[in-house]
Amino acid sequence: MKRSLFALLLMALSTSAMPQTASDAVVSDYAVRRSEYPRLLPGSRAEFKVKAPDAHKVQLDLGRKYDMKRHDDGTWTCVTDSLGPGFHYYFVEVDGMRVSDPASETFFGCGVAASGLEVPYPEGDIRFAMADVPHGEIAMRRYYSKVEGAWRRMFVYTPPCYHESTDKKYPVLYLQHGGGEDERGWAIQGKTDVILDNLIAAKEAEPMIVVMADGNSKDFTRELIEECMPLVEKTYRVVADADHRALAGLSMGGIQTLNAVIEHPELFRHVGVFSSGWWANTNAPAGMGNNTEKYYAKLSANKDYFNNQFKNFWLSMGGEEDIAFNNCKVMRGRFDDMGIKYDYFETPGGHTWPVWRESLYHFSKLLFK
Amino acid sequence: MKRSLFALLLMALSTSAMPQTASDAVVSDYAVRRSEYPRLLPGSRAEFKVKAPDAHKVQLDLGRKYDMKRHDDGTWTCVTDSLGPGFHYYFVEVDGMRVSDPASETFFGCGVAASGLEVPYPEGDIRFAMADVPHGEIAMRRYYSKVEGAWRRMFVYTPPCYHESTDKKYPVLYLQHGGGEDERGWAIQGKTDVILDNLIAAKEAEPMIVVMADGNSKDFTRELIEECMPLVEKTYRVVADADHRALAGLSMGGIQTLNAVIEHPELFRHVGVFSSGWWANTNAPAGMGNNTEKYYAKLSANKDYFNNQFKNFWLSMGGEEDIAFNNCKVMRGRFDDMGIKYDYFETPGGHTWPVWRESLYHFSKLLFK
Repeated sequence: MKRSLFALLLMALSTSAMPQTASDAVVSDYAVRRSEYPRLLPGSRAEFKVKAPDAHKVQLDLGRKYDMKRHDDGTWTCVTDSLGPGFHYYFVEVDGMRVSDPASETFFGCGVAASGLEVPYPEGDIRFAMADVPHGEIAMRRYYSKVEGAWRRMFVYTPPCYHESTDKKYPVLYLQHGGGEDERGWAIQGKTDVILDNLIAAKEAEPMIVVMADGNSKDFTRELIEECMPLVEKTYRVVADADHRALAGLSMGGIQTLNAVIEHPELFRHVGVFSSGWWANTNAPAGMGNNTEKYYAKLSANKDYFNNQFKNFWLSMGGEEDIAFNNCKVMRGRFDDMGIKYDYFETPGGHTWPVWRESLYHFSKLLFK
Repeated sequence: MKRSLFALLLMALSTSAMPQTASDAVVSDYAVRRSEYPRLLPGSRAEFKVKAPDAHKVQLDLGRKYDMKRHDDGTWTCVTDSLGPGFHYYFVEVDGMRVSDPASETFFGCGVAASGLEVPYPEGDIRFAMADVPHGEIAMRRYYSKVEGAWRRMFVYTPPCYHESTDKKYPVLYLQHGGGEDERGWAIQGKTDVILDNLIAAKEAEPMIVVMADGNSKDFTRELIEECMPLVEKTYRVVADADHRALAGLSMGGIQTLNAVIEHPELFRHVGVFSSGWWANTNAPAGMGNNTEKYYAKLSANKDYFNNQFKNFWLSMGGEEDIAFNNCKVMRGRFDDMGIKYDYFETPGGHTWPVWRESLYHFSKLLFK
């Protein structure tokens, strides 16, 4: 009650007067050590501060751009409007140069080292928060890919019980990031370990291994099947069959998922496609939709096989504001017309990490049961 | 031969003419995907490019500052002098604001997300390069520290053979970063996994677990002994005795190492102190030298015990240009006076990651034999 009144009071004040008055400010989880900015203000607003004494114009770019105000000491500040809960990429634009905020940790997204802000979830929503439960771990594993002709890295989540016994074998979810990101997306921005640790502790998800590979690939299907899966199945205690193997991905990773499971349905019985869908027109980037009509034809010709093979065929979308909404809607229409069964989950938030965390939360509960 | 002639030719050319002529340029390992800069030129010089159309002054800060030159398209470039091999932090300064380079991956160092450049080692020096050998992995593990009253993260390297058998137990090296860094320092900048994978494959180092904890701690000795060690010894297959336990650290981590092993010598038989030494005067920051005289007295009074207990007491230094050189020299003098035995290794390079990688390379070969 005290907080929400305070939030209303803050909203009534001018932006420039706020830094001095925000006694309820909390430093962002992703501020670098010893930095007091960025910080969260009541009402899910965020305040930013950078030092740029000789700059002429500084803006904060959170998707929407905010002008930052110069102070006599050479610092610039701004306060945002109310922001949705979860992870947001952002940048600072200094005299036309887009940079990351020196006060923030960076996250590989948008093709660069982007700044990140974590807006707290509503009180009581502890799905994405560290809790006093047993914790798994995420391993960084390097390997040489003959498919890519290059050294690659994958991240592998193993559940809390993995190190406890030495004979138990686990099912595997292969989980792919989107464009402009890499294997760090799900591991860091996605909080995959936190989501799974919490669900496993609550017995809402089966203990599973989650493999987060680098999807920036010349041929993702081959990279997955010829490199990632053999390495994982050789290295970790894995039940290596389709019943115990899931593939999911977001955005670009969702299209890669669709392509791979249509080409090799015998390998996967659980499929997740988050904020994605084959291109609805012919403008798809290379590898993102060239074979779409071929895949539709294969699905249609083998409808019963696919409906039986995919125990889960789960599509999610970040509401109508998601840039992939139309592609997915057109694809769902095609599936409906040909009788391909799927589940569809929609949550507001657009084409963003809060939506994808939510997707993983719901999808992982369905798996391997 | 061709390369070095080309390097001489390049050095004779003006900086501004180079971007068009550097046909031997190689994009930096740490450039973000699709970026063509930073790039390495023959002669171990590096070329940088940023876009800042409205900036008035742009500099590259690699310790030494280079003025960047503006081009008509709003980009700024510069070429450095010859750089030493290995990892270097750097920044871009735009109109007085120090930022990371949008074209580079970032690395937590200097207390912020800093840009990083990897200058190739001389041909034939493959100690720090990915090779066709079995690979271990580095796990990110979260835990709640009662000592710190906070969630923390440690990185744990397990050797290639760790997942192969389920009963073999391993010795453990606890390895600490320096000030302004965290548990990512050794795992990422330090290439700990690459160094150990290569040494283990060559049978020059024993297969070992390496624990890289977060040294930003109110009480590192307690954090290590009450939190990190019990968690590691409970979770991984570890030989939990002093013979199979080493502690090492660089800079701030070296002082933390000294303090911990003097307070609890019974726990460690292998000690590494890289680019460090107790403060030689009374200006030590809190926790970095307050008990120094007490420790010297304990060492002196128990000289034979310590000389017997520390199978390895190994100090390294990045030459006279290392900012810790004098502190270490004074400390070595005190050790010599009281008859405390140690090994001392010096390599040029100053207070930098190339020196610390070199230190880990040599130190890890001595352990657990």
